[in-house]
Amino acid sequence: MGPSTNYYIHRQRFTLYRGASLPGVQLAWESWGELNKDKSNAVLLFTGLSPGAHAASSVRDPEPGWWETMIGPGKPIDTDTHFVLCVNSLGSCKGSTGPASINPATGQPWRLKFPELTIDDIARATRLVVEHLGIEHLHAVVGPSMGGLTALAWLKHFPNSTDRLALISSACSGTPFAIAIRSLQREAIVTDRNFRDGTYTEDEWPEVGMRIARKLGMISYRSAAEWQKRFGRKHQDYFPATLFGMRFEVESYLETHARKFVGQFDPCCYLYLSRAMDVFDACDSDAGLRALFKRSFSGKALVMGVESDILFPLWQQQELAAALEAVEAEVSYAALPSAQGHDAFLVDSERFGPPVAEWLE
Amino acid sequence: MGPSTNYYIHRQRFTLYRGASLPGVQLAWESWGELNKDKSNAVLLFTGLSPGAHAASSVRDPEPGWWETMIGPGKPIDTDTHFVLCVNSLGSCKGSTGPASINPATGQPWRLKFPELTIDDIARATRLVVEHLGIEHLHAVVGPSMGGLTALAWLKHFPNSTDRLALISSACSGTPFAIAIRSLQREAIVTDRNFRDGTYTEDEWPEVGMRIARKLGMISYRSAAEWQKRFGRKHQDYFPATLFGMRFEVESYLETHARKFVGQFDPCCYLYLSRAMDVFDACDSDAGLRALFKRSFSGKALVMGVESDILFPLWQQQELAAALEAVEAEVSYAALPSAQGHDAFLVDSERFGPPVAEWLE
Repeated sequence: MGPSTNYYIHRQRFTLYRGASLPGVQLAWESWGELNKDKSNAVLLFTGLSPGAHAASSVRDPEPGWWETMIGPGKPIDTDTHFVLCVNSLGSCKGSTGPASINPATGQPWRLKFPELTIDDIARATRLVVEHLGIEHLHAVVGPSMGGLTALAWLKHFPNSTDRLALISSACSGTPFAIAIRSLQREAIVTDRNFRDGTYTEDEWPEVGMRIARKLGMISYRSAAEWQKRFGRKHQDYFPATLFGMRFEVESYLETHARKFVGQFDPCCYLYLSRAMDVFDACDSDAGLRALFKRSFSGKALVMGVESDILFPLWQQQELAAALEAVEAEVSYAALPSAQGHDAFLVDSERFGPPVAEWLE
Repeated sequence: MGPSTNYYIHRQRFTLYRGASLPGVQLAWESWGELNKDKSNAVLLFTGLSPGAHAASSVRDPEPGWWETMIGPGKPIDTDTHFVLCVNSLGSCKGSTGPASINPATGQPWRLKFPELTIDDIARATRLVVEHLGIEHLHAVVGPSMGGLTALAWLKHFPNSTDRLALISSACSGTPFAIAIRSLQREAIVTDRNFRDGTYTEDEWPEVGMRIARKLGMISYRSAAEWQKRFGRKHQDYFPATLFGMRFEVESYLETHARKFVGQFDPCCYLYLSRAMDVFDACDSDAGLRALFKRSFSGKALVMGVESDILFPLWQQQELAAALEAVEAEVSYAALPSAQGHDAFLVDSERFGPPVAEWLE
């Protein structure tokens, strides 16, 4: 949370999709560009599992955001003409209410006492900020990765509320491979000796579990082909050798990413969001996805993904595009040859930029 | 180790490839079929990381072996005409000397005091059994998975000692993706609270680490496409739900495999063998692999792999086949469309059987 973060505080009880409720909700958000007079130029951006609302830098906060190359004046999501809004997901720990927040009833962090969270809840909480800003209709909704699931949940709860829709490296539900990866990440966290059923402290943090979860994440976010080219069998000397580890460059690469992540994300928030991704399913019946689009969207859609993505494979993008086509939305479909796997949308702006710019134009 | 296991005990000091030595070596082995008079019909089978010498059942031990469908009378590796030998790898824990064996100097298991093990050592220790049986020249060497690395190490140390060579779902070295997977498996084991620098006991076993390692193994051994078809998003009710786990069938599948494995393999043996796989490299220079084959093999080779293998991808089989072709060996190359990923050689005998039978004929 930086100097450009805004907080919206909803003081009423917020009922979750599974029935439990929160006594109130705080949502961290950032925006770029100006909302025009009739509030018709808003682009709502949903995030992946771990990023916060800081998607791009601004005058108030020059720190680069997680989609720095995509958002800004003259960039693919052009803030000279659009008002871009990004809200930290409900359940996350970057300023919004989640398992790491204080439960006002106890004065302690919620941790595992937080009620079950769904992707639907993230969409519905985000709506509070949109309404707070007086935006009744969106120009566009953009959902990369988990954000694509949230975009689908948005359509489900707020049909026909956006003219454009971009689903990027996403899906209508998790594959068993993706569920297996996430399940194992969670297992590493909950079995960490410091996790202790969510009663970890700052001094005794489930670091090992979070490190393993992050490394496993990186394995699923990138691609074998990229690593072959980038690391091959090169040795590393950046970290001291560990017991049966830290000989190869790929090992130090994973270690660097893991160390950065451990202090930046709350383990319980990770667990709740990860499980919400597994459970979400907008294509649970053959006709489910088409029916969803039919009653909720008729504008201009963009569906993109990359060939090397093993977490949200290309056939899932094809499934999304086919369902949109079936309801006669205007669909652009782009299957990109990026080598960086699922993470390509974050790093391969050369390939991702032009289709996004064209779709939003 | 069953009723058909034989043990060869080498009482002299055995010097390892990296220079350290073991006071003696025990090797567990099994065989099928009869060695002919001139001892010219021997097929030496190397194993993957975790299997023991029990590759197939026999009259003495009807328990199915790990390659039951491939070895036996009238099967692709036909024991009516061949004498098939399989030795438990040095460093393993299925009857051969390894980190789980007793160090005679201390009366305690070696554990982390075991010297560094290489794939070369596995090949060289296997040679002791071959010599003990009086076999001077092999009819064939078969190496699936890690066994393929061992087969290459065999050629390196014992050039021109076999007429035929089969490298199955293998490689000349590990990719950074494979190293990342194995490194993370090892990290899960050594950070288990019960691992305690290798001083774990039967009552306090690093179960969690071994379970995570095995599940990660399964993720890398199978394929996303197979799981999509087999599990989809089906729910499970076989295991009680766990904290953020055990909702989906893919989770109970992994749990079943992991539980089976935990009691069957020693954690330190796993670490040593896993690291040996990372470090082995028969193609460390451009000309390395061709040079190895040139001076060590001129017979009939078979190289096989499957399209869905992410651990030993097809391009690595192509690399092996190309190097064999370059030295003018007779090479059959088969890229199979099996859905079961790296494990296909263990389960898809319909596809793997015929090329092996034809090559060995």
